[in-house]
Formats: sequence, C-alpha cells, structure tokens
Amino acid sequence: MKLGEIADALGLPLEGEAALEIRSLAGLDDAGPGELSFAGGARYQKQFEASRASAFLLPPGFDALGRSCLRSSAPYVDFTRAIELFLPDVAFEPGVHPTAVIAPDAVLGEGVSVGAFSVIGARTRIGAGTRIHPHVVVYPDCEIGPDCEIHSGTHLRARVRLGSRVIVHNGAVLGSEGFGFAFGKGGRVRVPHRSGVEIDDDVEIGANTTIDASHPGHPRRGRATAATHVGRGVKIDNQVQVAHGCSLGEHTTLCAQVGLAGRTSVGKGVFFAGQSATSGDLHVADGTAVLGMSGVMSDTEPGAKLVGVPVMPRALFFRILAASKRLPDLLKRVARVEKRLGIAGPLE
Amino acid sequence: MKLGEIADALGLPLEGEAALEIRSLAGLDDAGPGELSFAGGARYQKQFEASRASAFLLPPGFDALGRSCLRSSAPYVDFTRAIELFLPDVAFEPGVHPTAVIAPDAVLGEGVSVGAFSVIGARTRIGAGTRIHPHVVVYPDCEIGPDCEIHSGTHLRARVRLGSRVIVHNGAVLGSEGFGFAFGKGGRVRVPHRSGVEIDDDVEIGANTTIDASHPGHPRRGRATAATHVGRGVKIDNQVQVAHGCSLGEHTTLCAQVGLAGRTSVGKGVFFAGQSATSGDLHVADGTAVLGMSGVMSDTEPGAKLVGVPVMPRALFFRILAASKRLPDLLKRVARVEKRLGIAGPLE
Amino acid sequence: MKLGEIADALGLPLEGEAALEIRSLAGLDDAGPGELSFAGGARYQKQFEASRASAFLLPPGFDALGRSCLRSSAPYVDFTRAIELFLPDVAFEPGVHPTAVIAPDAVLGEGVSVGAFSVIGARTRIGAGTRIHPHVVVYPDCEIGPDCEIHSGTHLRARVRLGSRVIVHNGAVLGSEGFGFAFGKGGRVRVPHRSGVEIDDDVEIGANTTIDASHPGHPRRGRATAATHVGRGVKIDNQVQVAHGCSLGEHTTLCAQVGLAGRTSVGKGVFFAGQSATSGDLHVADGTAVLGMSGVMSDTEPGAKLVGVPVMPRALFFRILAASKRLPDLLKRVARVEKRLGIAGPLE
Repeated sequence: MKLGEIADALGLPLEGEAALEIRSLAGLDDAGPGELSFAGGARYQKQFEASRASAFLLPPGFDALGRSCLRSSAPYVDFTRAIELFLPDVAFEPGVHPTAVIAPDAVLGEGVSVGAFSVIGARTRIGAGTRIHPHVVVYPDCEIGPDCEIHSGTHLRARVRLGSRVIVHNGAVLGSEGFGFAFGKGGRVRVPHRSGVEIDDDVEIGANTTIDASHPGHPRRGRATAATHVGRGVKIDNQVQVAHGCSLGEHTTLCAQVGLAGRTSVGKGVFFAGQSATSGDLHVADGTAVLGMSGVMSDTEPGAKLVGVPVMPRALFFRILAASKRLPDLLKRVARVEKRLGIAGPLE
Repeated sequence: MKLGEIADALGLPLEGEAALEIRSLAGLDDAGPGELSFAGGARYQKQFEASRASAFLLPPGFDALGRSCLRSSAPYVDFTRAIELFLPDVAFEPGVHPTAVIAPDAVLGEGVSVGAFSVIGARTRIGAGTRIHPHVVVYPDCEIGPDCEIHSGTHLRARVRLGSRVIVHNGAVLGSEGFGFAFGKGGRVRVPHRSGVEIDDDVEIGANTTIDASHPGHPRRGRATAATHVGRGVKIDNQVQVAHGCSLGEHTTLCAQVGLAGRTSVGKGVFFAGQSATSGDLHVADGTAVLGMSGVMSDTEPGAKLVGVPVMPRALFFRILAASKRLPDLLKRVARVEKRLGIAGPLE
Repeated sequence: MKLGEIADALGLPLEGEAALEIRSLAGLDDAGPGELSFAGGARYQKQFEASRASAFLLPPGFDALGRSCLRSSAPYVDFTRAIELFLPDVAFEPGVHPTAVIAPDAVLGEGVSVGAFSVIGARTRIGAGTRIHPHVVVYPDCEIGPDCEIHSGTHLRARVRLGSRVIVHNGAVLGSEGFGFAFGKGGRVRVPHRSGVEIDDDVEIGANTTIDASHPGHPRRGRATAATHVGRGVKIDNQVQVAHGCSLGEHTTLCAQVGLAGRTSVGKGVFFAGQSATSGDLHVADGTAVLGMSGVMSDTEPGAKLVGVPVMPRALFFRILAASKRLPDLLKRVARVEKRLGIAGPLE
C-alpha cells in the first residue's frame, strides 16, 4: 500500500512522499524500512528520532524532521484504524448455518448470522445484524440486542439479556447459577437463581469469564429486577468472575482474573487491575482504582487509589512496605536500647 | 398468584389476607406493593417495619404487626421455594436429540436426556434421569450417576465418575491431565494421568472450573485408586482449580477462583473463600476456614480461622495489620530514643 | 501382567521373580501385594522397607533387600512408562468425523483426525498426524503443526500458529483479542488485535487457559511479527492468562491461575508458581522463580527466587514475615522505653 493511499483511507493530511510503499505496521522501536509507525506525543521524541520506520502518524506540532508522516490528532487511534487496512478481520460467514439448531419460536432479526452447531433456545430474541459464531449455546428466554458479536464457546443460560453492540469472547459463561445455598434440615439446599443477567450496550466480555445469575432476594438497586447488572461501556477481560447480584456502573474496567463476590456494587469508571477482588456486600465508589492482587473488604471513597489485602491507600501501602524492610533491623535496635537502659523481662 | 395459593403450594400457615395478589418476590428493602418478602429473624425487625412489601415469610414468634404473612420455621428456605413458583426453571427438552453422537456401547439409563451435539464416548454409562444439556463432551470410560445435570460446554475426560444428583455448570473440565512431568534425558516427559476423577453424591461444580485427573503414583488415602476425589455434598464455585491427587472431604466449600495445588488433602466442612489457595502436599483439617486471597502452605489445625500469605490465625493477622500502620512512625520514635541516648552507628 | 513381561516391555533388567503377578501400580506408602511401586533414590529407603508392594523400580545401587525389582536409571520416568501398560490411553477415533465442518480450502495433512462437530476455518492448515478431538473450533487462517493433540472445547481464533507436538487441553482459548483500547473522542475504541499467537514445538497448554492475540504496536523482540509468543517446551497449567504481546522463553513453566499482564517478557526456564502474576511491560530474567500468589512489578535478576506482592527476595520476605509477628509487642516495648525516658508528645 502506498502512503498516499493510507492517507486517503484514513482521511489524514500527508506530509512527504505519497508514493512510499508501506508493507506493514510496527511500534517505533521495532519498525524498519517499509513500515508505518506512530508517536503519540513529545515524550516519544527520542524514540522517533531513532526509529527506522519509513513513515509515521504524528500529532500536530510534532517536528517530523522532514520525514514522511500523516498528521493525526489521535495517532494511536489512527494507528488502530490502520491495522484494519493491513490485517483485515477474517470474513465472517453470513447467514444461518444449516447445522444450527434454532427453536421454532426463537426470533431472529434481519441479517442475523448463526454459525455451525450453535443452539438457540425457545423464545430467545436476537437483534438485527448480530453475529453468533459456531458453537454458541443460548438457553431459552434470552434477549440479545442488535449488532452484537458472540464468539464460539459462549454459553448464555436462561434469562440473559444483552444490549446493543455487546462483544462476548470465547468460552464466556453468562447467567450460570449464583453460588448460593440455604441451610435447611437436610443440609444445604440450592437457591434457584432465576433473575438472570443484564448486560447494557457497548459492553465487552473476555474469554472464559463467568457472570452469574441472581435471584429475587438480592438487591435491585433501583432496577426492575434483581438481575446481575453490567452497565454501559464496561470492559471485562479474560477469566473474570462476577458473582450473583453484582452491579457494575458505566465504563468500569475489570482486568483479567478479577473476582467480584456476591452483591458487590461497583460505581462508574472504576478500575480493577488483574487478580484484584472484593468480598461481597459492599460499594466501590465512582472512580476508585484498585491495584493488582488487592482485596476490597469495605466501601471505598470516590477516586480512591487502593492496594493491599485488605486494601489501603496506595501511599500508605508503599510507606509501610518500605518501613517493613527495616523491621528486622528495628527489632535489633530496640533490643540495644533496652540493654542500654537495663530493661528486661516480659511486657505487662 | 394469590397469597392463599402460595400458602397452599408451600404448605405454610397463612395469617392475613388470602386473596392478596402477589406478582413477584423481593428482599425487604426492595419489595413494594404486590410483592412477597421474608425476614429470617428478629434482627430484621427494623427492615421489616420499613418494608413496603405486601406479605412476608416470617418465623414463629416474629411480630407481624398485623401484616399478612406466611409462618415458616425457615423463611429463607421457603423464599427459595417460592422462587420456583414465580420463576420456574425453563423446560428441559427431554429425550436424546437426534444430533447427539452416542457410542454404540455407551449405556443410558431410563429417562436420560442428551441435548443437541453432545458426544458420549465408548463404554460410558449414564444413570437414570440424568440430564445432559447440548454441547457436552463425555470421553470414553466415564460413569455418570442418576439424576445428574450437566450443563452445556462441560467436558468430561476419560475415567471420570460422578455420583448421584451431581450438578456441573457450563464450561467445567473434569479429568484433564494433571500438571505433572518427569525429568528424563531429553528434558520433561509428560506423566500420563489415567486415574481419573471421582465425584461423590450431591456435589455441585461451578462454571469453567477445572478438576484434574490423577495418576497411580499419587496418594490413595484409603480409597481403591489414586483418583482425584471430591466428597459428598461438596460445593465448588466458578473458576476453581483442583489439581491432580487432591481429595476433598464431605460438605467442604470452595468459593470462586480458589486454587488447590497437587495432592492437597482437605477435610470435612472446610471453607475456602474466593481466590484462596494451597501449595501442595499438605492437609487442611476439618472445619478450617481460609479467608479470601489467603495461601495455605502447611497443615492446619481443625477449626482454624486463617488469613494471609502464608496464612496465620485471623486474630494475629489483623493485629499485625493494625500495628504495621504504626510502623513508619515507630521507626521515627526509635530514632528519637536513640538520639536521646546517644546511640549511633551500625548494628553488630 | 507378569513382572517379567513388564521388564520386557520397559526394557529393564529384572532381579527376582519373573513370574510374579502384578495387577496395578502405586506409590510406596499405598502399594499392597500384587502392586509395582518405585523408589527414586536413597532418601526413600525407609518408605521402601515399610512398603507392602510386591515389586519395585529401583535405581542401581539401591539395596533391594532381596525383593523383586526392575533396575532403572530413572525410576519415576519408567514408572510413568508403566502407567501406559496398566492404564492405556483411550483409543482415539481416527479419521475425519462425518459431522465435522471443514472449510473447502483448509488443508489437512496425512492421518489428521477431526472429531465430531469440530469446525475448521478457511485457509487453515493442519500438519500430519494431528488429532483434533470433537468440539474444537479453529477460526480461519490458523496453522497447526504435525502430531499435535487438541482436546475438546478448545477455540483457536484467527492467525494462531502451533508448532509440532503441541498439546492443548479442554476449553483453552488461543488468540482471543487482547484487552486493549484506544481513547478517542467517543470514548474507548477497541484496538483490533490481529497479530495472532505463535506457539512453538512441544508446548503444553492447560484446560481453560487463555492466551490473547497481539497487535502490531506491541514489541516484536526480534521476531517477524508482534504475535504473542510461547517458546519451545513451555508448560502451562490450567486457567492461566497470558495477555497480548507477552513472550515466554523456552522451557518456562506457568502453574495454575497465573496471570501475565500485557507485554510481559519472560526468559528461559522461568518458574511461576500458582496464582502468581506480573504487571505489564517488564522482563522476567532467565531462571527466575516466582513463588505462589506473588506479584512481579519490575524487572528481575537471573535466577532470583522471589515472593510477595510486590515481590522481594525470598529470604528477605520470610525475615520480614517473622519480624512482623513481633511487631505488636515491639510497639509496647518502644512505649515502655519512651516512658522510662520521659519521652512523650507527637513526633516532629
């Protein structure tokens, strides 16, 4: 592809050689001749200068030093658009595969695709343009909005509702029964979790993630049912566990292997780094950031930066960590002081 | 549904208006007019008084204040039974789906259901009344007891044995090869794990959980084979890892994302909270409770309440945690003392 | 099986009774009459003496005390070979199952098996002798080497390349989109991850493990593309998460539930114990050993033994741990000293 063609395809102004042949994309450090790279801002100046790329996506005002570039107000966003040019998504087989088993009373919108061996349960409704890959199982009474993409190996249990443009990666399980038991005479009795899961628009759910269904005894938080709820624009990575009765506010982020225990209420724009977790029945306020491997055991303040098990403010955690490395010596120092003072014997 | 009909269906005595129309269920705080709620005991008195529910499940002796109620010795258990009335399970397609691939020498008991595209391997036996959902793969030589429910996406490798009434949720993998290698001349050699997995009656296994097969070199603990063993009534949540050669005593509980390393022996009635773990080759005694994100690295005492990495008694953990927050100041206090005493210089 | 037959099958010299009937295998402590066990070296002398096994695999020089044995320079390796005799793998149905859906332009090598309901995408190539179990989904443009074994429930997204003799256990997801978003005007925009995953020869991947695809903006580390890369001989246990742009050196080991964040570069022969993790954009040097539940937040030194969150040298971690148990008392001791010295009031 010529640089000029890329400029046209992305709709960006070109400075330099339009006829330059670009064969692939790479970061500044890795790029070589014939490759297009990008620099997000002034802090990449040195890497830019050392880069062997043939052309760059650069923000306005970034000195191109006479090298060929496309000007972009968001170089990384435009770099990801360029990925679509060089590495297009594999074509998705449109239509309903003849092997798919679709309940007679399921309702498929216009242009819905269903891949080989997928199973669509009774009364389930699927919105226009949604793409169901092969080997997806949708239990009865689900509702899937338009323009969703459901990858192979996904399982939607009964009463799961997805909004528009939801992406679910392979092996995710939505709506499995929450881990709740009542204690009866004969021991533990399963509590039927039949309130389902509600996923709002523009949510993405990672591979092998599990989001459990809720039951009517769990809090509704102002919604019509006690369904486990994932708000608009939430992004969930792989192998995350969201237990029964949780609620996630808009644009919250759960990194890989996070675990939210039952009835965790999470605000908007919250960030959970990898392997962090909550114990149940608590509220994580808007804008909270929980660092990796940290455990939230009580309500948080808006915007708090937290770390540790249980979590504490980040600054305190690292102050204690630094001090703890001096602790073995401190024990000796206190013993020296006591010796000097002639203090001995047990504490009262 | 009228309250009187609910009383009849649950077999509970009614106090108040039998003709009351009940349209759904909810917890005390969320319930509104037309809803049935429950209070487990006296500590819910205030929430009960504030509740806008139309009717309640209440224990004997709880003052109903003249409001309509059903009397129950176990209000939460009866609430979960009421869920079955209002949110019945979706009908399960009975029978063997024509697309299922069943080995000619597999043996299916009376009333066994097998869903679309499920695969049942050679010599596998399935007990009466067991329900295999679509997209379940059972390798050869398995044995599944009666009245089990196996959800879609479950994979049973060879030589997995399930007892009666076992429930397996979606995406669980039972009997995959344990992570064991021998060191030969050419490097690591896979140890074949062919002793399978044995799951006793009334066990429940969560979505995307993995329970690995064992091999004959692992301890048998008085059983006929070295199979990885899950005892009667054990409840396992989502995304739990149980490694080769583990053994779980009756009624033990593993919450989400717990990881048990190889040959962990767990007693009866043990509780592992979310993301807790063990290193291998140790015994967790009856009644031990391991808090979330905690790591057991040695044998435990019966009934111990443990937390931390590695675990320590809960009281000690929280005493150290409180003290550690004073540690940065303590360093300064000791320096002040040393200055007063004219102590300086390095420790010996 | 007679002991003499076992000796012949394993090609090992026999001392003692060739006619001895052996019915199964077991470890030293569990074995009884009619069973074959093994002792790896002198430290098992006492267990050997107490063992009720009828025969043993013993290294040269180990005093058999007149008991029947097979001599082996690697008793555990030969024990695992004996497992193949007593517990043979279940026969794999060879050939392509009639229900498999294979793209017309997919290329299958000689002797490739594809199980029931598996789906092989367009342009995918599969090497000779590879065994694809039932219910495997391979997206388009994948390349699978010869003599691989892919278990049921595995999902390979587009542009995943496997070398020779790769084993993938059930439910693993390779090549799912990395968790990467760019921040545009309308909020978060998905970065298309189209650089795939490259798995080298002799790798093994555990059940429900996820290895995400990379994109061209991620580091290439001297390779042709920015694909997420798993080096030769790496062994990965169940439920491990390997994020976009990671690179694993030869013969590295990832135990269950490990999580590697984006662009983690791991050297050769590294060991991550269960539930350990890294934050992204760092290098774990050759031979590093990370203990369980530990978090690596910066580059490591070759051969380091690390533990903690964040990690520190093992010796330091346990010294601090021991000291911390004395911390509550230390606070009291310092208060006693201050009282003696008449020091009071706040720190400056």
